[in-house]
Amino acid sequence: MVAEQVAPTPRPAGEVPQTMRAAVMFGPGDIRVVDKPVPRPGPGEVLVKVSVCGMCGTDLKIYDGHFPGTPPYGTYTPGHEWAGTVVEVGETVDEVAVGDRVCIEAHHGCGRCENCMAGSYTACLNYGDVAKGHKASGMTVDGGFAEYAIHHVAALSRMPDAVSDKDAVLITTAGTGLFGIDMIGGYLLGQDVVVFGPGPVGLMTVQAAKQLGARTVVLVGTRESRLARGAGLGADHVVDARRTDPVAEIRRLTGGEGADVVIETSGNVATPQQCVDAVRRGGTILVVAFYPEPVTIDLSAVVRQGVQVHTTRGEGGNNVRRALALAEMGRLKGEELVTHEFPLEDIAEALRVVRERDGDPLKAVIRL
Amino acid sequence: MVAEQVAPTPRPAGEVPQTMRAAVMFGPGDIRVVDKPVPRPGPGEVLVKVSVCGMCGTDLKIYDGHFPGTPPYGTYTPGHEWAGTVVEVGETVDEVAVGDRVCIEAHHGCGRCENCMAGSYTACLNYGDVAKGHKASGMTVDGGFAEYAIHHVAALSRMPDAVSDKDAVLITTAGTGLFGIDMIGGYLLGQDVVVFGPGPVGLMTVQAAKQLGARTVVLVGTRESRLARGAGLGADHVVDARRTDPVAEIRRLTGGEGADVVIETSGNVATPQQCVDAVRRGGTILVVAFYPEPVTIDLSAVVRQGVQVHTTRGEGGNNVRRALALAEMGRLKGEELVTHEFPLEDIAEALRVVRERDGDPLKAVIRL
Amino acid sequence: MVAEQVAPTPRPAGEVPQTMRAAVMFGPGDIRVVDKPVPRPGPGEVLVKVSVCGMCGTDLKIYDGHFPGTPPYGTYTPGHEWAGTVVEVGETVDEVAVGDRVCIEAHHGCGRCENCMAGSYTACLNYGDVAKGHKASGMTVDGGFAEYAIHHVAALSRMPDAVSDKDAVLITTAGTGLFGIDMIGGYLLGQDVVVFGPGPVGLMTVQAAKQLGARTVVLVGTRESRLARGAGLGADHVVDARRTDPVAEIRRLTGGEGADVVIETSGNVATPQQCVDAVRRGGTILVVAFYPEPVTIDLSAVVRQGVQVHTTRGEGGNNVRRALALAEMGRLKGEELVTHEFPLEDIAEALRVVRERDGDPLKAVIRL
Amino acid sequence: MVAEQVAPTPRPAGEVPQTMRAAVMFGPGDIRVVDKPVPRPGPGEVLVKVSVCGMCGTDLKIYDGHFPGTPPYGTYTPGHEWAGTVVEVGETVDEVAVGDRVCIEAHHGCGRCENCMAGSYTACLNYGDVAKGHKASGMTVDGGFAEYAIHHVAALSRMPDAVSDKDAVLITTAGTGLFGIDMIGGYLLGQDVVVFGPGPVGLMTVQAAKQLGARTVVLVGTRESRLARGAGLGADHVVDARRTDPVAEIRRLTGGEGADVVIETSGNVATPQQCVDAVRRGGTILVVAFYPEPVTIDLSAVVRQGVQVHTTRGEGGNNVRRALALAEMGRLKGEELVTHEFPLEDIAEALRVVRERDGDPLKAVIRL
Repeated sequence: MVAEQVAPTPRPAGEVPQTMRAAVMFGPGDIRVVDKPVPRPGPGEVLVKVSVCGMCGTDLKIYDGHFPGTPPYGTYTPGHEWAGTVVEVGETVDEVAVGDRVCIEAHHGCGRCENCMAGSYTACLNYGDVAKGHKASGMTVDGGFAEYAIHHVAALSRMPDAVSDKDAVLITTAGTGLFGIDMIGGYLLGQDVVVFGPGPVGLMTVQAAKQLGARTVVLVGTRESRLARGAGLGADHVVDARRTDPVAEIRRLTGGEGADVVIETSGNVATPQQCVDAVRRGGTILVVAFYPEPVTIDLSAVVRQGVQVHTTRGEGGNNVRRALALAEMGRLKGEELVTHEFPLEDIAEALRVVRERDGDPLKAVIRL
Repeated sequence: MVAEQVAPTPRPAGEVPQTMRAAVMFGPGDIRVVDKPVPRPGPGEVLVKVSVCGMCGTDLKIYDGHFPGTPPYGTYTPGHEWAGTVVEVGETVDEVAVGDRVCIEAHHGCGRCENCMAGSYTACLNYGDVAKGHKASGMTVDGGFAEYAIHHVAALSRMPDAVSDKDAVLITTAGTGLFGIDMIGGYLLGQDVVVFGPGPVGLMTVQAAKQLGARTVVLVGTRESRLARGAGLGADHVVDARRTDPVAEIRRLTGGEGADVVIETSGNVATPQQCVDAVRRGGTILVVAFYPEPVTIDLSAVVRQGVQVHTTRGEGGNNVRRALALAEMGRLKGEELVTHEFPLEDIAEALRVVRERDGDPLKAVIRL
Repeated sequence: MVAEQVAPTPRPAGEVPQTMRAAVMFGPGDIRVVDKPVPRPGPGEVLVKVSVCGMCGTDLKIYDGHFPGTPPYGTYTPGHEWAGTVVEVGETVDEVAVGDRVCIEAHHGCGRCENCMAGSYTACLNYGDVAKGHKASGMTVDGGFAEYAIHHVAALSRMPDAVSDKDAVLITTAGTGLFGIDMIGGYLLGQDVVVFGPGPVGLMTVQAAKQLGARTVVLVGTRESRLARGAGLGADHVVDARRTDPVAEIRRLTGGEGADVVIETSGNVATPQQCVDAVRRGGTILVVAFYPEPVTIDLSAVVRQGVQVHTTRGEGGNNVRRALALAEMGRLKGEELVTHEFPLEDIAEALRVVRERDGDPLKAVIRL
Repeated sequence: MVAEQVAPTPRPAGEVPQTMRAAVMFGPGDIRVVDKPVPRPGPGEVLVKVSVCGMCGTDLKIYDGHFPGTPPYGTYTPGHEWAGTVVEVGETVDEVAVGDRVCIEAHHGCGRCENCMAGSYTACLNYGDVAKGHKASGMTVDGGFAEYAIHHVAALSRMPDAVSDKDAVLITTAGTGLFGIDMIGGYLLGQDVVVFGPGPVGLMTVQAAKQLGARTVVLVGTRESRLARGAGLGADHVVDARRTDPVAEIRRLTGGEGADVVIETSGNVATPQQCVDAVRRGGTILVVAFYPEPVTIDLSAVVRQGVQVHTTRGEGGNNVRRALALAEMGRLKGEELVTHEFPLEDIAEALRVVRERDGDPLKAVIRL
C-alpha cells in the first residue's frame, strides 16, 4: 500500500499523528481526500503542519493530467503554494525550529548540477530527480494540499509575525514576480514599468515594482474589477485593453518613448507583441507567463530596438525571503487578494471554481 | 579683464541681465562676491537662474586651494550642488525649456572616451578637458555660487513641482548614494544594510536604502543629533560608535553573520576596517567617501570572506533622475536636512560655519 | 546644387582635393557615382581617405529605398563598413592623427540621452537627430562609398599595421558579433556555443567564440561552401541543416542538454524556434539578425527552461576595438572572407552581385 | 584508534584495498605517513585513487598549525590540489564512473545557505559544517596527500585525455585565477591586463588572460627565472620590480592611462598600492592573494578614480571546468610549471623545499 512506501519508519508517539487527511490524485480529473501517513523529514528536511495552500493555473494542468513528471497516481498530493508551522525537523536542520511559521519556494535544486552551482536552481538540470535532491513541492514530490507536508529547509522561509498565513500564499506568488525583477537587475527606481495581466502574479508585481521605486507603474488587463484592485495596490495607471489600445496609452504615458520595463504575466498570445510595441529602445521585457500556443512576434523590431527579453520560472534567487521582508514592513499586501477559501475536503469544488472563474476568484486557497 | 574671456558675445536685451553677482575665488582662502558677465549657453547647454546652491566638504578643499584642475583664480566660481530655473537654452536643446525648474549632476562626461562610451561618465578619461566636452560644474568650470550658471543639458534633470529647490540640493547628494547603490546592483530588497556616517550622503542613503526595501538599515555615527535624524528618516537602528562597538552591534543585529551591504560615507580612516569586520561572507562594501590619509585594512580578511569593494565618485548613471522620482513620491526627504541658509554675499561666512561646524550644520546652502 | 549644402566652407589648398568621386542615391534602385565636394570635419570629427567599404544586406535595403531616415536623395552616400587613412582632423581631435589608418563603428550616439549616458549608444534615443550629435555612417549621414568620408572620432579605431584594410571591413562585422557576446556576459570560456548562419557575421562570431575559449562551437547553415569555410575558421562541428536536423545534432553534441549559448545570425524565420529547441535549460539565446516577417516561437518553452533572449544591433560597447586587438594577434581572420572586390564606379554591379548571390559572394567590397 | 572513526563500514573485497598510505598531521610541524583505512564515499561522493597532489602556501600554514577549522590531529590528511582516477562512486552518482580521470575544486558548498543558493559556494555560510554538507578538501575534511581521497561529485571534473595528471594540479590553480576573472566579468578581450606575482596562480592567470584575448598582459615580479617563464607562457611584457618601477612602466605601456584590469596574486603588502597606482580611471583591481599583515592603501584614490576592487577565494563558479576546456585545446599549460616531484613518503621534505624555496620550486607535487 501507498502508506508504507512514503513513510517506512514508524513515527514515535507525540503531537504529530501517524496519519493525516490529504488530497491525492488518482487520475486525470480524479482528486480525492484520503487518509495517508504523515511523512517523515529526511536529513535537511522539515515537516510542516500546513495551514493554507494556494491554488493556481498549474494546479489545473495537474488536475487535468497535463503536467509531466508528477509522482504516481494513487500517491500524489499536489499543492505548491503553502505555509504553516514547523512540527518536526530532520537531521542537521537548525535554520528553523518546531513552532516556527514558514512559507515556501516550490523549487529546491539538486545543488550539484552546473545550474544549481551557479545559483540558477529553478533551472536545475536534475529537475525531477528526487534521488539527486531536486524537489518541486506539489509537482515532482508531494505538496501542500494535505494536513502535513515536508520540504527541504533551503526552500523554507521563516515568517515574521506581521505576515499572516493567508499573506504567505501570495508571498510565494510575489517571489515569482520578484525573481523576474531580480533577473532584470532589480533596480527599478525611477523607471517606467508596465505590467500586463492583473492576476495574482501581476498584482503582486505591481506592488513590488512600486515599492522598489518605479516612477510609473501601468497595469494592463481586461477585467475591471481586477484593474480596480491594481489601482488600489499602487498602479499609477490602469488600462482596460478592451476599451483602450494599451500600446498607444503606454506610449502616451511615457512621453512617446515607451516603458523602460514591460512585464508580461498574462499568458495571452497577443500580449508579447504588445510588449514589443510598448517597450522603449534599449528597454527590457520580462516574461513570467505560459501560453496555450506558440507566440508570434516581430523579432526584427526587438533586435532593431536593442531590447532584451528575460524570463524566469517559479520563485528563485532567495526572492521569497525578499518578499517577506517587504510584507513585514507592511509594504506588500497578500491576504486581500485571497477571494475564496475552501476546506481541504472541498478541493474538487475549489478546482471547479478556479477553472470556471465562478465568482471571479482572484486567489483561491485551501484552509487546513 | 575676466568678463571678456567668459562671455565674448554680448547678450541680446531681454530678461536676462548682462551681469550678475557671483562668488569668485581669487586665491586660497580668498573668495569674493563680484560682478561678472552672465555666461551664454553653447550648443547643448542651458543657462539657469540659480535659486539655491549647497555646500559640501569639497568646497572647503576648493576654498583652501587643495582641489586640482580648477579654472584660474580671478575667474573661477565654485558650487556644484545647485538648482534653479531655466532662462535660456543653447542650440539643439529641447529636453528642457525656459521656465523649467532643474537640478544637476556635477559631472558631464566628454562622451567620446572609452569610459563615457561605456556609460562611466564620472570616470571620464578626459576629466577637466573642457574642449573635448568634459565639465564638472563648480570644479573644472564655473558653478552655482552665482546668480546664473550654465551646464550641459545632459547633466540637468527637470524637477517635478512636488520637489522644492531646497530639496533639490539634497537630490544631488542622494544621487551620490544611489549611484553607489546602482554600482553594487541596486537590488537591496530584503538585505541588511549598514551605513557608516550620518552626514548628508549617509542620511540620503539611509532613506534610499530603506525605500528600496532593505530589511534592516543600521546607521553608525558619533553625533547623537545626526543619529536621531537618521532614525527619523528610516534607519531601523542607530549606533553611537563612541558608546557601542559598531561591529559587535551589527553582528548582533544580523544574527552573527554580518550585513549584506556596508556603505561607508564617513571618511574616517578607522571605518574601512570596521566595514570589513561588519560585512558578511560574500557581502559587499561600498565606499563613497574620501580620507585625509591612507587607510589600513586587513585585506586578507576581505579575500578570505570573498567580499567585493565598490566605489563611486559623484552622482552618475542617471541616478539624480532616479532620486527625483523617489522625492516626487514623497519618499525621499531633502529639505529637512538643510539646517543653514546664507545669502550669496555671506559665502565666506557660510564656509566658516561649515568648516568650524558652528551650530552643527548638516547641510548649509546659499540662497539666491 | 548639392555641393554647397554639404561643404559650405571652401577647403584650403593642400593634399585634400576640393571634390571627390562618390556614390549617391538618387532614388530607389538609382545609385550613381558623381563628383561631390569633399566634406569638412567639424569639431570632434575626422576626414578619412577611404580605401575600402564593405557591402551588406542593409545596403540592399537602402538601395531599394526600404531603409528609413536616410539623407535626401541626390545627396546621400551610403556605406557603413569602411576603413582608410586619416587626412584631416576637426577641432579638439587628438585621438588620431593624419596618416593613421582607421576603421569604424557605424553608430555614434548623441551622448546626451539616457541610453547613451548609460553606455547603450547603439540604442540612442536621438537616433537620426544629427543636430544632437547622433550619426549612423552611411545610414543617417553620408558614409563610405566615396573617396572621402567623415565620422566622429569616437566611432573610429586606429588600426595596427598587422590588420589590413580588407580585414578592417570584417572587423566592423566582428564588432557586431562581439557586441552581442558582450551583451550576454562575454565569458564563453568552456561553454558550448552554437552559431546559426554562416554569413559574415556568423563566421566572424565563430572565430570570436572559439578564440574566447568556447569548448565547442557548432556552426549551422545550408550552404556547404560556407560551412567548409566555418570549419576552417575554427568551428568544431558544422551542420548542414538541409541534411541533418540541427536540433537533434546539437543535442547529441552536447550530451543531450543543449548548448549553453545559441547565437542566431541567419535571419531565417524558422531558426528562432530551433534556437529555443537547441539551448539548454537556463541557457542564453543571442539574436543578431533581421527577419523578413514575424517569427513564431514556443514562448512557454523559453519561460519553462528559464532561457534569456538577448539582442544587439550594430557594433557597440567598444567592441570594434576589441575585435582589432584579436585581429592584431592574428587570431581573427577578416580578409579571407572578402570574395569580391569592385571599383567604386561599379557599385551598381556590386549591388547586383550581392543581391543575386552571383558567384556565391561572402563579402563584397568596394576598393577605392 | 583513528581508523574506526574514519571508515566505520568495512569495504567489500575487491580492487580497492582496506587501508592506504596517507599523510596525517599529528601536530604543528608534525606530519607522518601512516596506514589508514580507505574512506568510503557517501551519497553524492566519489572515491578517487589519487595520482598527484600539489602543494601550495596554504599547506605551509596548515603544517605550521595556523589554519583554523581542520579535522583533529591524528586523523587529518591535508592536500587540496589533487587528481586521480575514480575507483568507487557513492549513491546517486552517475556524473562520473569508475575509471574516469578527475580533478577537483577544493570547496564544496552546503547547497542550502543563502550564498550557496546564489551560486557563491566558496563563500558558504556553513563553511566547515560537514554535517550540513560543506567540505573544503584537505582543509576541513581529509584531502589528497594519500593514496585515496573522497570528494563530492559536484567538486569533481572529468579530465579529457589531453590533460595530464600533472597538468591537473595546475588546473585547480588556474581555476583560482579564472574564478577571479569570472567575478570581474570575464570579458578581457582587448583589455590591458597586469598580473602582479609570477607564482603558480599568477602564471596560470597570465595564460588565461592572454587566451581570453587581453591585448597586453604585463607580468610583474621579482624573480627573473619566473618572469622568463611568464614571458614564455604569453606575457607580452615582464617587469622586474627590483629594477624597474612597475607603476611607471605600466603607465608607459598603456599610453599613460593605466591598465584596465590589475590582478594581484603576489601577497606582498606593498603591491596593493601599486595596483591602485597602475589601474586606470574606472578600472578594476582583482585580489586573489593573502597577506602576512594589514595592508595600507590610498583609498581616496580608489574612490576618486572610480575603481572597483574584487576578490575571490579558491576556485568557484565552475571555473575548474572552464580551465579544463582551455587545457584540452592545448591553450593552457600546467605540467611545465611542476618543477619538483616527491613520493608521498617524502612529504615532510617536500614541505621543507617549498618553505625554503630550495631549488626555486614553482610548483611541487606529491606523486602517488
